[in-house]
Amino acid sequence: MPPVPLPQQLHELADLLGEMCTAAAGALNRATTAMLDGRVRLAEQVIAGDARIDAMRAQIEDVATDALLFHSPVAGDLRAVVSAIRAAGDVERMGDLALHVAQVVSMRHPRPVLPPEVREDFTQMGALAVQLALKAAQVARSRNVILAVELDADDDAMDKLHRHMFTVLMDPSWPHGVPAAVDITLLARYYERFADHAVVVANHTVYAVTGEEPDAIPI
Amino acid sequence: MPPVPLPQQLHELADLLGEMCTAAAGALNRATTAMLDGRVRLAEQVIAGDARIDAMRAQIEDVATDALLFHSPVAGDLRAVVSAIRAAGDVERMGDLALHVAQVVSMRHPRPVLPPEVREDFTQMGALAVQLALKAAQVARSRNVILAVELDADDDAMDKLHRHMFTVLMDPSWPHGVPAAVDITLLARYYERFADHAVVVANHTVYAVTGEEPDAIPI
Repeated sequence: MPPVPLPQQLHELADLLGEMCTAAAGALNRATTAMLDGRVRLAEQVIAGDARIDAMRAQIEDVATDALLFHSPVAGDLRAVVSAIRAAGDVERMGDLALHVAQVVSMRHPRPVLPPEVREDFTQMGALAVQLALKAAQVARSRNVILAVELDADDDAMDKLHRHMFTVLMDPSWPHGVPAAVDITLLARYYERFADHAVVVANHTVYAVTGEEPDAIPI
Repeated sequence: MPPVPLPQQLHELADLLGEMCTAAAGALNRATTAMLDGRVRLAEQVIAGDARIDAMRAQIEDVATDALLFHSPVAGDLRAVVSAIRAAGDVERMGDLALHVAQVVSMRHPRPVLPPEVREDFTQMGALAVQLALKAAQVARSRNVILAVELDADDDAMDKLHRHMFTVLMDPSWPHGVPAAVDITLLARYYERFADHAVVVANHTVYAVTGEEPDAIPI
């Protein structure tokens, strides 16, 4: 059997990466709904579904390795292959973070995870994070570098929400005690990290297309 | 100028990765000392030094890209190159986590970050995390797959310390309130993530040498 042509492999990598980002977005969307509505079975679906996202990472690496082996790509094509490997690692981590949210819901069940004061913040963080993952999917598929810039603005909004959460927790009148604060600290961190990884995924595409690392890779 | 021979590039990648792990270990070691002893200038050194770790990641990617371009490596050599790229991303993140510890020290200065109850836990977590990074350096340099197994045991010890920290925080008699608990929650998470990434770095080497992903890649 002749090897798959390189352009087809690059196309497949872009599609798989887009699909993987969309799967991570779906996982976090379900985990957020499970958290807000106390739906433990939905949380368990997210937990069970993480293996699929991990498998997609392995599949991307297989296609990328084949591309390197059979075609020895150069210049932009080589960057596209290497960036796909790096981006897949970030999206796998996004899946893990959605899994972590679901695990908190499952561990705390039937107790709700969020006190009323922070429900609205988490609703917004969830929506923003899912939106970032879907935009990263679109950047990966379309290789649209202009669209990648949008993700930075969304990520700034996420950082603002994340900081606001700490203002709420640090308020001396916080009535829910340390255990709830600890859960919320970690959950907020999961959303913020998920968003950061989505930005990094888009930045990998920018690097593949332009050969330049965006300056604003978040840490 | 003739291209650098592949064996020499692979050697360089192993050395650079080892050096990078050692640098991350040094950064976390200094950040931990800064935190325990309230040494803000040491924390600032860690913050300033992170750019060097980031630069090493870029250097590893350059060498790896050259290896792919000029030698089209196959089999174990190809895995070694791709694994170096992936591992460098993990070590960069370890540097970021050391940076985050230093940033908390710097932000809270001159107030100490840790109440006395958790100093011993963080001393141990710091020592373990640094030890894991140094072992990951040794695995990267020596490609000793047997040594990689040791890291899993160390990481189990880290997880135990991490869980113990939550027991301390969740105790109804915790006297330091929510703000200290929030800091400690995040700091403990930084150490635990640092250790996880060190294990992943070692596992990348296992994959490069054996062609098999270790089952126990931590999430």
